[in-house]
Amino acid sequence: MPKALDDLVKALSSLPGIGRKSAARLAFHLLKRPPEESLELASRIVKARENLRHCLTCGYLTETDTCEICAGSSRDLSIICIVEESSDVAAIESTNEYRGLYHVLGGALSPLDGIGPEELNIAGLKSRLESSHAREIILATNPSTEGEATASFITSLLRDTGVKITRIARGLPAGGSLEYADKTTLSRAIENRTTQK
Amino acid sequence: MPKALDDLVKALSSLPGIGRKSAARLAFHLLKRPPEESLELASRIVKARENLRHCLTCGYLTETDTCEICAGSSRDLSIICIVEESSDVAAIESTNEYRGLYHVLGGALSPLDGIGPEELNIAGLKSRLESSHAREIILATNPSTEGEATASFITSLLRDTGVKITRIARGLPAGGSLEYADKTTLSRAIENRTTQK
Repeated sequence: MPKALDDLVKALSSLPGIGRKSAARLAFHLLKRPPEESLELASRIVKARENLRHCLTCGYLTETDTCEICAGSSRDLSIICIVEESSDVAAIESTNEYRGLYHVLGGALSPLDGIGPEELNIAGLKSRLESSHAREIILATNPSTEGEATASFITSLLRDTGVKITRIARGLPAGGSLEYADKTTLSRAIENRTTQK
Repeated sequence: MPKALDDLVKALSSLPGIGRKSAARLAFHLLKRPPEESLELASRIVKARENLRHCLTCGYLTETDTCEICAGSSRDLSIICIVEESSDVAAIESTNEYRGLYHVLGGALSPLDGIGPEELNIAGLKSRLESSHAREIILATNPSTEGEATASFITSLLRDTGVKITRIARGLPAGGSLEYADKTTLSRAIENRTTQK
């Protein structure tokens, strides 16, 4: 393989979910399409890196100081949903169900990887709460070891603020089946059962 | 979603095999990694487009006038393998079995898409043969309607050159099973059966 092609394949295969074979396929595609198209992708990567930063209030990605969600007039200021990553905001927004605000931590506590509370956007959370109209905090960190630890940490941190603290439900996913569910998921689904309406 | 992010997701989702959801995942990944890493990918796309062109002899991708394969001293000059795309060269090279030369057509005949012999690297093939040491041509176009039509076309074009013309075998893939093979594949596998050694 010519060097420029090999370099491109290597860079593409460092992306998540893209192995060497898919990377080669993408590289050949980029070389086959009109040059404008591939150069447009390159320029959009550069522009995204240059123009996007973290919202000063919630930490979500934005091109201005305050993101569209924090600046939005139709949002419910009484709820703040705490998530690990900006991608989680996009995921929740795509449900069109939640109208409150967000707080993006930028990761989850993981002492083994050297990620403590200082590495996350946690310090800003308490001061944000004090100057906000929030009456409820939804802990929407991932149901993983790190996500649960982060949720517990934030719970103890905010316990004395008087704000109601909730955690997103953990149970069987839609379309899932009891037969294939792991023990932890099934235990939690039973433990957190809800009253049938 | 902020515009710069949305633009990036759209550009990524135009890549083959990358849907809107994977594109968003890739975009968030590119924004989370150190800037150098994402900018390196962008720069490699630009460099690949700028530096790679088609080998004047065979049409494969190269950074110089003649590709490494055509310029290689250890290649068998008596065989030329005709393929549709540069990616097919990479696929065959990865087997480490073939030591001959290549000829990249740049596609396959597809009248419905307006791709006739003039749109492909076919005109150069005959003159290349005349000035070469080739004694065999392997038709390695895809076993699709377009690939078969292209193979037939080239066969009739080169019939009077006296060069031996072969076609890559079509049959059951390694690890495949008769039970799940389609009728055409199975018919061909029986038709093109080989003597068991």
